[in-house]
Amino acid sequence: MLNGRLGTPEAALMTTGAGAGRTGANSMGRRLDPHLLLEARGGAVDFARLAGLAGRSLVHPNQLDRGTVVELSAAAALLEGWTVGRLRPLDGKVAITAFFEASTRTRLSFESAVLRLDGKVLSIPDPRVTGAAKGESMSDTGEMFNSYGDVVIMRHTETASIDEIARNLRIPLINAGNGTGHHPTQALVDWYALLKWRPELATAGCPADRRIHLGIVGTPGSMRAVKSFLWMSTLFEGAVERVTIVSELADPVGQDLQDALDRSAIPVSATNDLREVLEDLDVIYMNSIAFLGDSYERLNVRHRLDADSPLRPGAVVMHPLARADELAPDLDATEHNLYFAQAAGAVYVRQALLLGVLGRIGALADAVG
Amino acid sequence: MLNGRLGTPEAALMTTGAGAGRTGANSMGRRLDPHLLLEARGGAVDFARLAGLAGRSLVHPNQLDRGTVVELSAAAALLEGWTVGRLRPLDGKVAITAFFEASTRTRLSFESAVLRLDGKVLSIPDPRVTGAAKGESMSDTGEMFNSYGDVVIMRHTETASIDEIARNLRIPLINAGNGTGHHPTQALVDWYALLKWRPELATAGCPADRRIHLGIVGTPGSMRAVKSFLWMSTLFEGAVERVTIVSELADPVGQDLQDALDRSAIPVSATNDLREVLEDLDVIYMNSIAFLGDSYERLNVRHRLDADSPLRPGAVVMHPLARADELAPDLDATEHNLYFAQAAGAVYVRQALLLGVLGRIGALADAVG
Amino acid sequence: MLNGRLGTPEAALMTTGAGAGRTGANSMGRRLDPHLLLEARGGAVDFARLAGLAGRSLVHPNQLDRGTVVELSAAAALLEGWTVGRLRPLDGKVAITAFFEASTRTRLSFESAVLRLDGKVLSIPDPRVTGAAKGESMSDTGEMFNSYGDVVIMRHTETASIDEIARNLRIPLINAGNGTGHHPTQALVDWYALLKWRPELATAGCPADRRIHLGIVGTPGSMRAVKSFLWMSTLFEGAVERVTIVSELADPVGQDLQDALDRSAIPVSATNDLREVLEDLDVIYMNSIAFLGDSYERLNVRHRLDADSPLRPGAVVMHPLARADELAPDLDATEHNLYFAQAAGAVYVRQALLLGVLGRIGALADAVG
Repeated sequence: MLNGRLGTPEAALMTTGAGAGRTGANSMGRRLDPHLLLEARGGAVDFARLAGLAGRSLVHPNQLDRGTVVELSAAAALLEGWTVGRLRPLDGKVAITAFFEASTRTRLSFESAVLRLDGKVLSIPDPRVTGAAKGESMSDTGEMFNSYGDVVIMRHTETASIDEIARNLRIPLINAGNGTGHHPTQALVDWYALLKWRPELATAGCPADRRIHLGIVGTPGSMRAVKSFLWMSTLFEGAVERVTIVSELADPVGQDLQDALDRSAIPVSATNDLREVLEDLDVIYMNSIAFLGDSYERLNVRHRLDADSPLRPGAVVMHPLARADELAPDLDATEHNLYFAQAAGAVYVRQALLLGVLGRIGALADAVG
Repeated sequence: MLNGRLGTPEAALMTTGAGAGRTGANSMGRRLDPHLLLEARGGAVDFARLAGLAGRSLVHPNQLDRGTVVELSAAAALLEGWTVGRLRPLDGKVAITAFFEASTRTRLSFESAVLRLDGKVLSIPDPRVTGAAKGESMSDTGEMFNSYGDVVIMRHTETASIDEIARNLRIPLINAGNGTGHHPTQALVDWYALLKWRPELATAGCPADRRIHLGIVGTPGSMRAVKSFLWMSTLFEGAVERVTIVSELADPVGQDLQDALDRSAIPVSATNDLREVLEDLDVIYMNSIAFLGDSYERLNVRHRLDADSPLRPGAVVMHPLARADELAPDLDATEHNLYFAQAAGAVYVRQALLLGVLGRIGALADAVG
Repeated sequence: MLNGRLGTPEAALMTTGAGAGRTGANSMGRRLDPHLLLEARGGAVDFARLAGLAGRSLVHPNQLDRGTVVELSAAAALLEGWTVGRLRPLDGKVAITAFFEASTRTRLSFESAVLRLDGKVLSIPDPRVTGAAKGESMSDTGEMFNSYGDVVIMRHTETASIDEIARNLRIPLINAGNGTGHHPTQALVDWYALLKWRPELATAGCPADRRIHLGIVGTPGSMRAVKSFLWMSTLFEGAVERVTIVSELADPVGQDLQDALDRSAIPVSATNDLREVLEDLDVIYMNSIAFLGDSYERLNVRHRLDADSPLRPGAVVMHPLARADELAPDLDATEHNLYFAQAAGAVYVRQALLLGVLGRIGALADAVG
């Protein structure tokens, strides 16, 4: 097995430049130290498991098992803790960021991930730049991408688009959000933050008093980021004590996610009043927007959080951002703010995934070898 | 003469990475082997002829003679058959992709060509990003580009724009489609596919039974891709036995293209019913859209092709894509589908052109020298 | 002091490729030789002063003193006069060009500056690509940028946006135009052109007959480029004999700029008729557009200049471009046209600034050491 143990990483990896030390860290709220996650793992990353991602696509969170999520997080911690860009591990690789639904945050996150590893980017920032008047099918678009790049990172307003583009595609595809479908790399970002926050969540034998009561504010059935996060959470049965979904809707979950929840041993309950459960929650996961057709609908903001909300000590708030009224800025400077640190780690876990998918994780393995 | 003969290209050029072997090839339909074209040319590329392109613009297909088209295709075959990116032949060069008419396919094709040769890209993906409220003249835009990059690749809705921007431009200009004008690099893409398909078409003495009856479905006079393709076809008198234009219009050709056809020895006839000639055609060239003013008009799709169409055995269908209803997806998996292979070669012939125009074809010559 | 004296720059810096010699120069009008500025400075650049810019933002021209403007110009002259790109001084650095107000000219100028120094670019070409439906605050946008890049270059329609984004930003911010606020790098571009035109303007003891009578056509109070230029001009008291503002408005200046003018010793007068003063002006600075809210308003073009305007011999016209009717193209081929040379120098002075802000000016210092 290709295990990378952190002997003297400072010798192998330069510690200057962007990404070194705390550069790139969030301005406020909790700061998460990637070294803690690595130390809890004994400094080891299972690079062989990540090498197995080469050439594979990531469309749905069900393609990832818990071990892969943990190892991607460990590799991300390596990338966050030390500067490895000078290895130029994505040299010669071209990523196509195809954002048929515009999103600065996610697009730039992926593009930063690629560029900082010395890969190259072909960018479609907006559906309006695509000569859509020509009405090309997604499957023809996929055929086109075959000869342009080495990986496609796609966001689209239509849920079915991801299957359509995959039909003729011969290069890996990463789903960066498809309609009301999934957003699996956001779930990786979310769990990377949780694993840095409490590294013991990564282990099968997480102590009982460190397991979390997870509150989900929103409608997982139609909010793809929430859906993917909750789906991935079912992989962490030993870490999640229970889940409470706070929603206005009678059936906020939807059938396929319900099946995933049923397969897990995690108890799930529901309420329509955040105040009923807030003081018992360790992690509150929020999202501002429900994606409906080709537009957004804001949540009823009865479930708003601010600095006066009775959060329990040590509880953390997560949010995939961008946020609206549901999450007040006066929480930013508190210890409850995990969302800024969550965002600050996004580039690194996407880098880990890209290194795997593009068959270049070996460069990282060699560097820490 | 700077002839590059393929001694042991595998030794000179790495064979790993993108572009190597069949990577990047189309998913379905005919696959075209670039080595066949090179072998038919005795493994030689006339690099001196391509070096002569340095600093020149390509605005109209009449700037290219047959020999240059053939040598660009041979250089493209070199680029397609072996990985030369690690030579970084466009290092330090900046290409400006100025798409005042949005087109993902063509823009990304050029940008992929540049990036894979380690050049850099300044991208204008869309007229809406250009502060057009300021109403700058194209000639001032050209003056601006002089200090920003080394080559301009422009698409525009206005036919006259290409002459206007050229007025103050001191760096080479490549026309990527100007209104109802021309699209000369698409014609290069098209002929590169034909020359890989039947390498003997490149020779003056093409055997009579290998010459092609070429069917053009559309209105060459107002469809720039068709117009440029047909114009370039007049250079291949020894390869094109005859041309039949299938169009609803009384005068589908227009004066300047008619003059070019008249200058050639190729017999041209016309019909308004594809079924009359389909069984006699070796190559059917289609396009879905006519560019009219600043919008598109779909063709009357009475001339639709699908898997039930009585194509003769061995006949191939070409299409610059994107397509609409005129070309049914059930043809994709047949031997008649040359359009996917045609698209898959686009990046390489654009690379050959850029290496010539930017004075860097020598890097390729050295590599195979 | 870290003074770089130009011993044998040709030996240290390659003279081939883009940027070498006169490549990139304007097509018409006056051509400005960067060597003249360097020679007037004794070939020395005060790199230590520029190294002091590391990590700093540039939001308002009041953050620059005259010495810094002059040294940035001298460094720009070095960059313009010799090819230094192969030093790759911005290797590993990522610039975010965040154009929430679209502007091809300024965006591509910065992106060209970064790419030619081998930095990387994350581009937001247009507010419409930003998922603005999500309504993220600028301060959250700034928080996001912390983990994506090393410097933010922002343009925005809202004047207050620059302060809002700065709130959480931990990386340097360069203001590329904020509403009716400022555009300090345009002022640097303008003064770089003036200092190349008359190097003695950089010295405290500029001879009386070389001092300039500066005419400003427009409304400095609401036109950010004009405002920043005039503000920066107050630093050059020894060079600017007097200023005449030509405007339709009773109070064309606004309070904060008025204060800056009052602090300087430069006499300022106003008129509403350009013809009254034109023959006495050495430099005429024009701008076509006033930025109002989120749209543009054209100036009343009673103050139009063309080849028949009675400009005094040797007088030069400046314009940040793009232009409209106020500046006729028949002036382009005359000696009065400084605006093309002004534009042609923009990339280099932005490169000098970026090298300073990103802590990489040392690469340039080493090269000429």
